[in-house]
Amino acid sequence: MITLRPNSPPVRILLGPGPSECAPEVLQAMTRPTMGHLDPLFVALMDEVRTGLRALYRTQNELAFPISGTGTSGMEAVLVNLLEPGDALLVGVAGYFGARLAEIGRRVGARVTEVAGEWGRALGPEDYRRAAAGKRFKALALVHGETSTGVVADLAAMRGVADEFGALLIADCVTTLGGMPVEIDRWGVDGAYSGTQKCLAAPCGLSPVTLSPRALESLAARKTQVSSWYFDLALVRSYWGQDRAYHHTAPIQNVYSLHEALRLLLEEGLEARWQRHEHNARALWAGLTAMGLELLVPERERLLPLTAVRVPAGIDEARVRRFLLEHYSLEIGGGLGSLKGKIWRIGLMGAGSKRANVELVCGALRAALVEQSWKAKDYPLPAVHAFYATV
Amino acid sequence: MITLRPNSPPVRILLGPGPSECAPEVLQAMTRPTMGHLDPLFVALMDEVRTGLRALYRTQNELAFPISGTGTSGMEAVLVNLLEPGDALLVGVAGYFGARLAEIGRRVGARVTEVAGEWGRALGPEDYRRAAAGKRFKALALVHGETSTGVVADLAAMRGVADEFGALLIADCVTTLGGMPVEIDRWGVDGAYSGTQKCLAAPCGLSPVTLSPRALESLAARKTQVSSWYFDLALVRSYWGQDRAYHHTAPIQNVYSLHEALRLLLEEGLEARWQRHEHNARALWAGLTAMGLELLVPERERLLPLTAVRVPAGIDEARVRRFLLEHYSLEIGGGLGSLKGKIWRIGLMGAGSKRANVELVCGALRAALVEQSWKAKDYPLPAVHAFYATV
Repeated sequence: MITLRPNSPPVRILLGPGPSECAPEVLQAMTRPTMGHLDPLFVALMDEVRTGLRALYRTQNELAFPISGTGTSGMEAVLVNLLEPGDALLVGVAGYFGARLAEIGRRVGARVTEVAGEWGRALGPEDYRRAAAGKRFKALALVHGETSTGVVADLAAMRGVADEFGALLIADCVTTLGGMPVEIDRWGVDGAYSGTQKCLAAPCGLSPVTLSPRALESLAARKTQVSSWYFDLALVRSYWGQDRAYHHTAPIQNVYSLHEALRLLLEEGLEARWQRHEHNARALWAGLTAMGLELLVPERERLLPLTAVRVPAGIDEARVRRFLLEHYSLEIGGGLGSLKGKIWRIGLMGAGSKRANVELVCGALRAALVEQSWKAKDYPLPAVHAFYATV
Repeated sequence: MITLRPNSPPVRILLGPGPSECAPEVLQAMTRPTMGHLDPLFVALMDEVRTGLRALYRTQNELAFPISGTGTSGMEAVLVNLLEPGDALLVGVAGYFGARLAEIGRRVGARVTEVAGEWGRALGPEDYRRAAAGKRFKALALVHGETSTGVVADLAAMRGVADEFGALLIADCVTTLGGMPVEIDRWGVDGAYSGTQKCLAAPCGLSPVTLSPRALESLAARKTQVSSWYFDLALVRSYWGQDRAYHHTAPIQNVYSLHEALRLLLEEGLEARWQRHEHNARALWAGLTAMGLELLVPERERLLPLTAVRVPAGIDEARVRRFLLEHYSLEIGGGLGSLKGKIWRIGLMGAGSKRANVELVCGALRAALVEQSWKAKDYPLPAVHAFYATV
């Protein structure tokens, strides 16, 4: 007879690319009594979630709700709804998640033009213009915060670029939403998606999406049916919107946790939260560079919630991560794709973006490096303290 | 400034078509500390989940893991992987979820032949043979327990039927898995999916799937790429299997809850659990019929975890459900599609399948009907007690 052992996970300090630490209230919210997915009280809660997501995305868009899946499900949902087979898609690819956008675009049947760039650098408007070569596109898609490289794109500049191609503007906000400015309406973004397990500090399992009125028009004007039934936003919308038409059973407990995360986020204040993420990111950069470590990305293109650090020559990067996990119960990320083995990725996201974690990860990383006979330039904490003294 | 109110859901007694009541331990499991999706301890937990799912599905299939989405995502994942555009699909459609199977099959690009049947009756092998009209099919798909009608299909008889058409056998086990026998290997099912929020008594948000070796061969022999990246089982399998290749961030907290639900289920024993569901279903039938209510489905074709009850003439069915919710905090389901307004659906699933709920729902339903001047034949509890005295 098969028996399973009770699961007793240790307390991890989650400073990788996500999942990040959830606020205890957010985890507790998952234990609240389950309601039916059409219960009038649950429907009222859904409306609160939509209101919270609009505030978070800084948008008046009617369509703003979570897809019942992880961040990648939001990526697929937005592309499969806004693109039809044969449509031209221009995608910025300077990292793993840009490549994923292009791959999903191809699977949807779009004719994909990739804007190739160095992993670790931002693509600029000129890169898009060069790759577009004067052609028109149904959509321009890019990753706002590239989790694989720690680069932030200048999303605010992209509306004008998309307009030159007659394109809808689609942005991956998985790592940026809730951790730094995302201005859907002001920046003219037509389709955006995110995940709950990064700067929102909620458990993984939902992907908040939003579509502009222009994107909805495009959806209404489709000549072909959306190939996915699960991700058909017209159907999901009729459940999350006024009709309340049954589509699938919403993951009630995950919606509870997202609601609580949004409630805490609005209580903290969106700007205050952005500032917190920025302060802690800059303190981390000060600490790491004071130690003699090199950051992958030039400061102006650096993503705040996630920092990529070059692995020094002669260091076994996986051994460092094992050391951190074993001696500090601390998780940081390794590199993906062409950066595998070459960088670490340190996330300060959501509830994990706090001063204590900055000092901890600097100290622990230094210890892990010294364990491999690496000569640290300086004990990094004075640099961290000096940074905080200035803000 | 926008603020959200704290969410304080009432305790509902969930006797609808799902979500069902979760065991308190299962909800509590969601609050355990989050681990990373590649943490060695999480990877060990994933293996336990796969072991538990194999025991639950009664299979030796290597591929057995949860899709990161609700039950419908499992339906879409199995179809989009096992079918290619142009493939012939034979689907049993005698209810809402059979129709959904056909719809998703069409979206995948399959040539769908529907085996039409009366909603509330089971389709038999002869119905499939007649509709197949001597043709061959890539797959035969059917709903094991049709949640919209309360009918159970004779899945054990379908392997032979599928073989006549050279077809893979696909079964929707959303409402049956964990609540009544599902014998993937013995019955020769090639692809099956389920949900967590019914007889598994876990929160909604994951869809356990399994594929037979023959289904995996079919997957490996595909001529076209799977159109969905999120649901590409070859990719998801390389994360859940030996490679541990990153595909998407697993919903850690949901996996914790599924693991705990599987642990409790195996502790109870699968056969004991089936028996519990059967006893309580039969007691419910005794109580309802003693009251003078008519069940939609003939006894031999009746699904155990979910019972469809005809709404008596002159009764406002929605008013009954409002009455139950308001006075008893009790949820039952209404009809879907062509049965809308004509039936109630009463689920006794997972932790909700218990004697107290049988008596409660009979008593409360009687009160709701009497409130609309309906003449109850008999107070139903003696019939319920009489039933339990016999088992």
